[in-house]
Amino acid sequence: MLADLSAADLEAYVARVRADLDAFKARGLKLDMTRGKPSPEQLDLAEGMLALPGNRDHFSEAGEDARNYGGLQGLAEVRKLFSGPLGAPPERVVVGGNASLAMMHDVIVWALLKGVPGSARPWAKEDEIAFICPAPGYDRHFAICEEYGIRMIPVALTGHGPDMDKVEELVRDPAVKGMWCVPKYSNPSAESYSDETVRRLAAMKTGAPDFRLFWDNAYVLHHLTDSRHEVLNILEECAAAGNPDRAFVFASTSKMTLAGAGLAFFAASEANVKWQQARAFKQTIGPDKLNQLRHVRFLRDEAGLVAHMEKHRALLAPKFKAVTDALEARLGDTGAARWITPDGGYFVSVDLAPGAASRSVALAKEAGLALTPAGATWPYGKDPLDSNLRLAPSFPSLADVKAASEGIAICMALACAEVEQTKRRKEAA
Amino acid sequence: MLADLSAADLEAYVARVRADLDAFKARGLKLDMTRGKPSPEQLDLAEGMLALPGNRDHFSEAGEDARNYGGLQGLAEVRKLFSGPLGAPPERVVVGGNASLAMMHDVIVWALLKGVPGSARPWAKEDEIAFICPAPGYDRHFAICEEYGIRMIPVALTGHGPDMDKVEELVRDPAVKGMWCVPKYSNPSAESYSDETVRRLAAMKTGAPDFRLFWDNAYVLHHLTDSRHEVLNILEECAAAGNPDRAFVFASTSKMTLAGAGLAFFAASEANVKWQQARAFKQTIGPDKLNQLRHVRFLRDEAGLVAHMEKHRALLAPKFKAVTDALEARLGDTGAARWITPDGGYFVSVDLAPGAASRSVALAKEAGLALTPAGATWPYGKDPLDSNLRLAPSFPSLADVKAASEGIAICMALACAEVEQTKRRKEAA
Repeated sequence: MLADLSAADLEAYVARVRADLDAFKARGLKLDMTRGKPSPEQLDLAEGMLALPGNRDHFSEAGEDARNYGGLQGLAEVRKLFSGPLGAPPERVVVGGNASLAMMHDVIVWALLKGVPGSARPWAKEDEIAFICPAPGYDRHFAICEEYGIRMIPVALTGHGPDMDKVEELVRDPAVKGMWCVPKYSNPSAESYSDETVRRLAAMKTGAPDFRLFWDNAYVLHHLTDSRHEVLNILEECAAAGNPDRAFVFASTSKMTLAGAGLAFFAASEANVKWQQARAFKQTIGPDKLNQLRHVRFLRDEAGLVAHMEKHRALLAPKFKAVTDALEARLGDTGAARWITPDGGYFVSVDLAPGAASRSVALAKEAGLALTPAGATWPYGKDPLDSNLRLAPSFPSLADVKAASEGIAICMALACAEVEQTKRRKEAA
Repeated sequence: MLADLSAADLEAYVARVRADLDAFKARGLKLDMTRGKPSPEQLDLAEGMLALPGNRDHFSEAGEDARNYGGLQGLAEVRKLFSGPLGAPPERVVVGGNASLAMMHDVIVWALLKGVPGSARPWAKEDEIAFICPAPGYDRHFAICEEYGIRMIPVALTGHGPDMDKVEELVRDPAVKGMWCVPKYSNPSAESYSDETVRRLAAMKTGAPDFRLFWDNAYVLHHLTDSRHEVLNILEECAAAGNPDRAFVFASTSKMTLAGAGLAFFAASEANVKWQQARAFKQTIGPDKLNQLRHVRFLRDEAGLVAHMEKHRALLAPKFKAVTDALEARLGDTGAARWITPDGGYFVSVDLAPGAASRSVALAKEAGLALTPAGATWPYGKDPLDSNLRLAPSFPSLADVKAASEGIAICMALACAEVEQTKRRKEAA
């Protein structure tokens, strides 16, 4: 424990870690663990898709010509294939383009300009609106709120979802119109929402009659261990609690098949789907149905999808182990860093001693290691404690992840020790 | 000329056309000329794309992995390939998803919520905004305005573009923020904007400093004859007139390669492109680059693109000839119908005697012929004269187009004669 070291021992520790960092720097590496991108090897798993659907294969099961216009909701066989992971019957699933982020963005834009079912007026006509943002969270979610002037209210995560006492208090305010949720293997904390969390989200009393959960189930099948998390079905829980229209569910195949050429999904209540389709009808004649066919031909059925995700796991799990092993080896006994060993998802989230996050990033940069900027995981890019960092080990090779993790752990240890020294200096003054 | 016939001759004419219609009905046909969809034969022209890019072919010229995230603006080789048709250098071209309509929709949504370069405030914060809508025009353009409460002001088309005296008068109003333009082979009138029209649009004095031309060049390469229309480059003309940011240019390959799986494009000034990309960055990590690669591999270069469009022409031109031949044969000497014989595009627009459009659609329906509803080509679906009908001959087979055109021309002739009779009855009363 750094906090328990004598001043001299702490100084010796800092000197030792600095020497380790100098040795690491001397290796002259250039490594990047900033974005949750699949590796080329993961994309290779879907290599067979690049020649699909193949000549003369362009008819859906219903006989639609997938090459032509139309089919706004998506092909029935695709909606059926993803019905299970989305937790909604095919008739309440919508297939979009290649980005679930775009479906979220567009739904928010439509809520602002048109309102959602249950709205008294378009959200943009309200004096002010706000979203609850469990933090640390996904920077792209927060960027949408910031773009459109939606006030963000951070709420702490507990290890089994957001602090529900706080959430239940906040949603009494009618200005609170929405909440971002990554319910399984959260980005970046890797935690999953407990049954109690989901039930309370579904049942809580909201001041806004048109409050919506933006349920981004981005990692629904993205397990890394045999401890396969299951999260309650939010659509069913909302319906059971008498709030059938509360949840907008999103997912995509970007981290299943091809990151830039996947399928995005929206699932919700009948009223919400009808509303989304009426809006989308003004935006487009229909999605790319050939890419839908390509996915069905390649994945075939839900069993095929699950089997495909196992191949991702085989590539990803050793990388995650390399990260947590390095963290444990260097930081395990410092008492200055906490993380969840992920059972799934794409990130390792590390909470350091307050003030050590941005210092770690600066040290890492000097050592040739690119990290997501400190604060990126918080609304407005501002981590009040300057403590959270997000590591994304999926893209680099396993050897690079090992090297980078070692270097990052050294930077974190040094930053935490420096913070401890500074704290003592201030206390002594 | 129906107007010149005696009452008895008009009655005899009506009886004769009714008999022809009965004979047509007796054939028991079911035909549809409602939507500008490519035919299966046209889609077959791009059959080779269905197995592209093919295994292991997923790198751009710059070495980007087209399977992964990123590349918000689109691959350089795709922007280069379409630079000519779009009339903008590759660095001012953006490649979108599969729908140019979505790019138009999204730009309008962003203008409403954020404003465009030159806006004093978001358009939604103005008391009222309006768009100029040359009519007849494209129903999907008008639907976007209606969805978002943008007042539409119809302006007549002259055969070489909109009535510019009227347009120049209207744009003095600062509430007028935009104007829909289909400059080449307009939907549906098939007319192209003259050099004078384009220059006046580029140079006119607008009350709104952030006025935008929504330049939907949907039929830029969609020639049907050797009379290949050329329209002045709007981006260059706007720049020359000192209004460099005035035009947003749109196009797509939906009617070049695959209707539902094409590429959409946006081209504009540097400031506008920077603005569009900043907005799009909040919406998506990037477009489907594999579909971009698929297009480059298939079309290769602009010569390949032009050659491909010739194959469309070979399939489409006979269908258009069948329509105009049938119109000429049945309506040519009535003096009650006008149309432009299209040199390109996807439609034949027919202006009938006032009041005859909806009657023609009703008669056609009885005869098993589906027509776009009367009024569909006008803002709010309201054609003040009830005179315009849009025929879309691309999708049905040539034999079906011939049969349908004959039937439609009969219905139009009968409707016009009935209108003439009603008029005389009213005048006599």
